Amino acid sequence: MSTIEPDPAQLRADWQRLSEFRDPGQAGWTRRPFTAEYRAAREWLEAQMAAAGLATRVDAAGTLIGRRAARREGLATILAGSHIDTVAGGGRFDGMVGVLGALEVARCLGRAGIQLKHPLEVVDFLAEEPTDFGISCVGSRGMTGELDEEALARRDPSGQALAEAMASVGGRPDTLALTVRGPGSVALMLELHIEQGPVLEQEGTSVGIVTGIVGISRYRIDVRGQADHAGTTPMDRRRDALAAAAEVVLALEALWQDAPAPGGVGTAGRMFVSPNAGNVVPAAVELWAEQRSIDAELLRRQETALLERVQEIARRRSVQAVVERVSHEEPTLIPERVQDGLAAVVRGLGLPERRLPSYAGHDTMHVARIAPAGMLFVPSRGGRSHCPEEWTELEEWVTGVRALGEAVVRFDRELAG
Amino acid sequence: MSTIEPDPAQLRADWQRLSEFRDPGQAGWTRRPFTAEYRAAREWLEAQMAAAGLATRVDAAGTLIGRRAARREGLATILAGSHIDTVAGGGRFDGMVGVLGALEVARCLGRAGIQLKHPLEVVDFLAEEPTDFGISCVGSRGMTGELDEEALARRDPSGQALAEAMASVGGRPDTLALTVRGPGSVALMLELHIEQGPVLEQEGTSVGIVTGIVGISRYRIDVRGQADHAGTTPMDRRRDALAAAAEVVLALEALWQDAPAPGGVGTAGRMFVSPNAGNVVPAAVELWAEQRSIDAELLRRQETALLERVQEIARRRSVQAVVERVSHEEPTLIPERVQDGLAAVVRGLGLPERRLPSYAGHDTMHVARIAPAGMLFVPSRGGRSHCPEEWTELEEWVTGVRALGEAVVRFDRELAG
Repeated sequence: MSTIEPDPAQLRADWQRLSEFRDPGQAGWTRRPFTAEYRAAREWLEAQMAAAGLATRVDAAGTLIGRRAARREGLATILAGSHIDTVAGGGRFDGMVGVLGALEVARCLGRAGIQLKHPLEVVDFLAEEPTDFGISCVGSRGMTGELDEEALARRDPSGQALAEAMASVGGRPDTLALTVRGPGSVALMLELHIEQGPVLEQEGTSVGIVTGIVGISRYRIDVRGQADHAGTTPMDRRRDALAAAAEVVLALEALWQDAPAPGGVGTAGRMFVSPNAGNVVPAAVELWAEQRSIDAELLRRQETALLERVQEIARRRSVQAVVERVSHEEPTLIPERVQDGLAAVVRGLGLPERRLPSYAGHDTMHVARIAPAGMLFVPSRGGRSHCPEEWTELEEWVTGVRALGEAVVRFDRELAG
Repeated sequence: MSTIEPDPAQLRADWQRLSEFRDPGQAGWTRRPFTAEYRAAREWLEAQMAAAGLATRVDAAGTLIGRRAARREGLATILAGSHIDTVAGGGRFDGMVGVLGALEVARCLGRAGIQLKHPLEVVDFLAEEPTDFGISCVGSRGMTGELDEEALARRDPSGQALAEAMASVGGRPDTLALTVRGPGSVALMLELHIEQGPVLEQEGTSVGIVTGIVGISRYRIDVRGQADHAGTTPMDRRRDALAAAAEVVLALEALWQDAPAPGGVGTAGRMFVSPNAGNVVPAAVELWAEQRSIDAELLRRQETALLERVQEIARRRSVQAVVERVSHEEPTLIPERVQDGLAAVVRGLGLPERRLPSYAGHDTMHVARIAPAGMLFVPSRGGRSHCPEEWTELEEWVTGVRALGEAVVRFDRELAG
């Protein structure tokens, strides 16, 4: 028996309408932040928030917020939402299901006549996907104090500064420091999102409870051998940078194929070969690799193992290899208390309890630094995401929105206790 | 006791002067065909030929020829030479040692008062290195009838046709078909060249006798997997095109490391990854590979083995792989009779007899289709070539020129017999 009854027709109509705000010149559904189509989508979304009785505003970091007042003021805010920007050539679910889902939850609360003890803010975080400024999660970082002067001054290839871009969607980056939300200001953050992986679909589970968001370490691996004539240099006299890099690619793969629980993933996705000529033994390779795990200790051990493997390969092949860790994010753990509350909600809906980590980054990572936060996943068909084929069945999305709404009601009661 | 006494001071002076004709805007010693510095070098070389008593001309294919008359006319010509063009960023020995060496042989014959039975033509073949027209060995191909209308009509990136470029250095491509040299017109071709590999230097041998020029097969290998999120796609659900291509690179390397005698080389030198993004499992790789061997049958067997390995890798990884053979040159075998004559000359100079294949292509490949041909190698320091570090000791070059001259004298006698 559920108090939250999402309207499937409303969700489908919202989804269809929001999908129409896209760059027609790009493949799939492309809605990059700061563009005309993004601003038009925001305008439409703000109108829907207002129609649902929410008080709308754009915060200093450019996040669109629709606020539902509490029964009485005084308690910290519950945030629910995600983002509506997409990658280039993306799909229609990543981010959107969380924003439209939170909006529908607000409508459900209204229809059910439920007045929460906490204010509820439906949020559309600005620019969650990687931007041309070399920074992602702009809205959630800005909200929680993670955007410094250096970040705000970064320029995209057109020469515009991030601060200017934020202002173009109604942000006030100059007042950012004054409006940052600190610990205590947010009672809870909840984000409904697509899994972007195959686990839930494979298992036939409608809703997953996220245990944490994986940590990510990224590496640039420079391999230097020697350019030699591809004909006249005998096999045993070569210092072939590409052959060495090929071994590194396979070593990283094997490390994560054989990783102990809870496991993780390692990917070599980007490679440049020099001189990249058919008749020259490759002199140098620049290889970009990353690894992700929910287990911080495993991430460290695998890094050590990777460095050892790279050096072993380099020594054996008489090439030089330098591994530079270019970035590192520690795993974000969802508090047991939040996971348990979400599990109780899911079980209350008659659904199996399935806990799983998120292998992609989310705005929740940043909010989790100042407040308790939780995430719910709905299935992604074939595990596909960031592509036009991205798909989630309406029925499962509706179930996810129901769980999100029930969780808001449950935590509103618990947190005020 | 040698009848040919090359003048080391003359060779060094010629080499220094010819080296000065270079593109000052490029690294190393760059003398690309058809450029101002190339034409100036040709002008200087023609003057040296004339000063040595040779009758100079440029043939229809643009090759500069200095002819020394025979004792009496009637016998076919002995050709001796190489080329003076270089790769971009090249060195001062590849090609040059053979042209200047043949010129010095002509001078030695004069000083020694030796009148040959055959005419001797000192040749500087036009454009031996790969050109912007996508064709190499322009002069030797043109001389032997391998340049067809399609080749002559090819345009470089500036829009100039190869025929126009040939005419700019004195060639007459419109008369090419009439002046092609057929079987019987050339008694022998001899080319002195640097090894471009490490074998002679490693063994401390001054002069090597080339057994043949390797055949070369080149391949384009297209691997298609699936682009997936580098975080959310578990290791066992990936169809990673880069990991598959890495296996192909190592398989090709292993095939030639373990190849039976006479062996050969395999190289994967060129690779493009798509989408080449750090956080996306690679969807596609375009890999260019080549293999070379003096043994035509081994080349074929290794090709079969490579194709099998590629398909095994593709099946196991659920990716698709298409191997296209984009070019193939059969090995050129140097006739035993020519090798034996060169070996007798080398032994006569008190040098060890060392026979070895050439792993690089040469003008001799083309002339060998219409006439007996032979090659002598002098050592390359560290096996380096096509780079500014390319180096051969003067003393070893002088020995090579002496062997070339003695071979001309020996074959002149033998072939007329």
